[in-house]
Amino acid sequence: MDNKAAYYSLTGSDPELGAVATGSHIDAIPYSGKYDGVVGVLGALEAINVLKRSGFQPKRSLEVILFTSEEPTRFGISCLGSRLLAGSEALVNGIKESVDDQNTSFFDAAKSAGYVVSEENLSTVILEKGSYFSFLELHIEQGPLLEEEGVSIGIVTAIAAPASIKVEFEGNGGHAGAVLMPERNDAGLAAAELALAVEKHVLETGSMDSVGTVGIIVLHPGAINSIPSKSHIEIDTRDIDEKRRDGIVEKIHQSSIDIAKRRGVKLSEFRIVNQDPPAKCDHLIINALEVAVRQLNLSHKMMISRAYHDSLFMARVSPMGMIFIPCYKGYSHKPEEYASIEDIANGVNVLALTLAQLSLE
Amino acid sequence: MDNKAAYYSLTGSDPELGAVATGSHIDAIPYSGKYDGVVGVLGALEAINVLKRSGFQPKRSLEVILFTSEEPTRFGISCLGSRLLAGSEALVNGIKESVDDQNTSFFDAAKSAGYVVSEENLSTVILEKGSYFSFLELHIEQGPLLEEEGVSIGIVTAIAAPASIKVEFEGNGGHAGAVLMPERNDAGLAAAELALAVEKHVLETGSMDSVGTVGIIVLHPGAINSIPSKSHIEIDTRDIDEKRRDGIVEKIHQSSIDIAKRRGVKLSEFRIVNQDPPAKCDHLIINALEVAVRQLNLSHKMMISRAYHDSLFMARVSPMGMIFIPCYKGYSHKPEEYASIEDIANGVNVLALTLAQLSLE
Repeated sequence: MDNKAAYYSLTGSDPELGAVATGSHIDAIPYSGKYDGVVGVLGALEAINVLKRSGFQPKRSLEVILFTSEEPTRFGISCLGSRLLAGSEALVNGIKESVDDQNTSFFDAAKSAGYVVSEENLSTVILEKGSYFSFLELHIEQGPLLEEEGVSIGIVTAIAAPASIKVEFEGNGGHAGAVLMPERNDAGLAAAELALAVEKHVLETGSMDSVGTVGIIVLHPGAINSIPSKSHIEIDTRDIDEKRRDGIVEKIHQSSIDIAKRRGVKLSEFRIVNQDPPAKCDHLIINALEVAVRQLNLSHKMMISRAYHDSLFMARVSPMGMIFIPCYKGYSHKPEEYASIEDIANGVNVLALTLAQLSLE
Repeated sequence: MDNKAAYYSLTGSDPELGAVATGSHIDAIPYSGKYDGVVGVLGALEAINVLKRSGFQPKRSLEVILFTSEEPTRFGISCLGSRLLAGSEALVNGIKESVDDQNTSFFDAAKSAGYVVSEENLSTVILEKGSYFSFLELHIEQGPLLEEEGVSIGIVTAIAAPASIKVEFEGNGGHAGAVLMPERNDAGLAAAELALAVEKHVLETGSMDSVGTVGIIVLHPGAINSIPSKSHIEIDTRDIDEKRRDGIVEKIHQSSIDIAKRRGVKLSEFRIVNQDPPAKCDHLIINALEVAVRQLNLSHKMMISRAYHDSLFMARVSPMGMIFIPCYKGYSHKPEEYASIEDIANGVNVLALTLAQLSLE
């Protein structure tokens, strides 16, 4: 069968069997690079085109899925496309009411972009478990290891467990000249302290696999001569080990409470936006990837994905695998992001051969 | 003579004598209140109207000056109107090239608002020293003292010395999941550390009169899953004691260097936007204010202005004085800012009587 999520496909000789899907996302953060996501979308189209041109006849259909809103830029929650495909009624209803900074709801935005098929809800997009035989994603590494070690292909074995948190502090604000220091409860300094506390709690685990980032701090009213009366902080933390990651989240929560108390500001929001488990890649797919890299005579290594991807969510409804290719200095999420034509071609070849194998299972 | 800066006036019987001027500013910060500045503009118009209606004939002309861009919101430098009136050729040429966040130059902005009289430069606005016999400004206190002590009028004796600083850090940025903690040079955390260092250096002076504020922190690219590659911080610090204030500025500079070194980020900008001396109010004006409050039977106190005002710059070209009135809880630079009709009326009456006295000198 052709699945409702498919964007492009090659119909198999037995289209009733679960299809083999591949794809990635087409959206990007502000001031981003041009390879994160897009390589896996154009690569998927090219891999299937190569198989078509070669006259290959799959047994299971091959399908390309093109995700949007993988980046949390607009609604503050990542992987909205794959999260909804793999979602539940509860999740769908929660997301429906989320608003962007222009107060446009996710439902209205999805509708105006043509993604809504029912006026009632978004749950018609949810995929049944087993809708796909397998899902495979090609992606740049977004880290420096493959390039540093001169390895062509990374075969991903697991995706780290991500969490994201929004925090808001509120104080009295006031004039930067007239309000004396002991009278202040500065929401901006509370945010600064919390940002440094996130770093401290991550380093305290003692594990290289723990990371934490404050990518967003917004001060209100945002004038040089005004004490911040409100601050908004967004925090991202991840780990291979889910329990250790949950420990970091708990420490960040405790620090938020302590900072608010000590500075006399109100902790007006502490919201865990998502706190997802890690995902393990499927053995059958890993084996097929190893066969492909051997056939192509490419160097490879097994690795963990510290960044997460639509594959993290697709793993909830389908066996999942990922292919990494090297990128310049590991740069990602900035304009210097780059992957060479040769590395992309290697990734597409591995993808095509792996899709072919899986489509005959 | 009617001065070129005057917006509204009452001509004296001896118009060749230096005029007595009064006024304040009409601009405001984002999400501001409605009293900061505006009370001194509408109050000035009303004070002169009252004198006109009463049939009072001044010897020296009375003039209202209405300043714009007292707040540093658009070009990052405060009191542009009064600063230019009291300015030098060097200052004027420096300001001319300043740009706002849309890259519009100050010169172009001033031109499109009708403030430019010469295509060559802005220096035609500079007032000669002695252009005015005296300058007087009515303003809300922007602090809590008058209200707390139940005093109607504050007679300002001096304005604290302000300085403002812009700082930028640059790091490598990168993906919040993929770049491990030891590989990072996070420009956002450098900003957070500097914000806390500003507070520390201010408290270290041990004086109640030292204040310091970080009202602006901007992180780039500003995405939850991206390590900040750039940060921009704006700092305001003031003190009654100029040397002590300069000591704080120097410590902030040293901390910026130390933080950049320790975190492996580049200190790409450390710019002192302004570092002004304090201003003393004129004895003749203070005496006239004391006579006025006694005539009106109003309680008063002598006080220092910790906030600064256009009067700080007008003091460079004219003897200067300021009248403060109470405001609700000392709130300013936020929507809750408020002054009662009674307190505003008291301020206007003191202003009118003082202008009348000075106009007869």
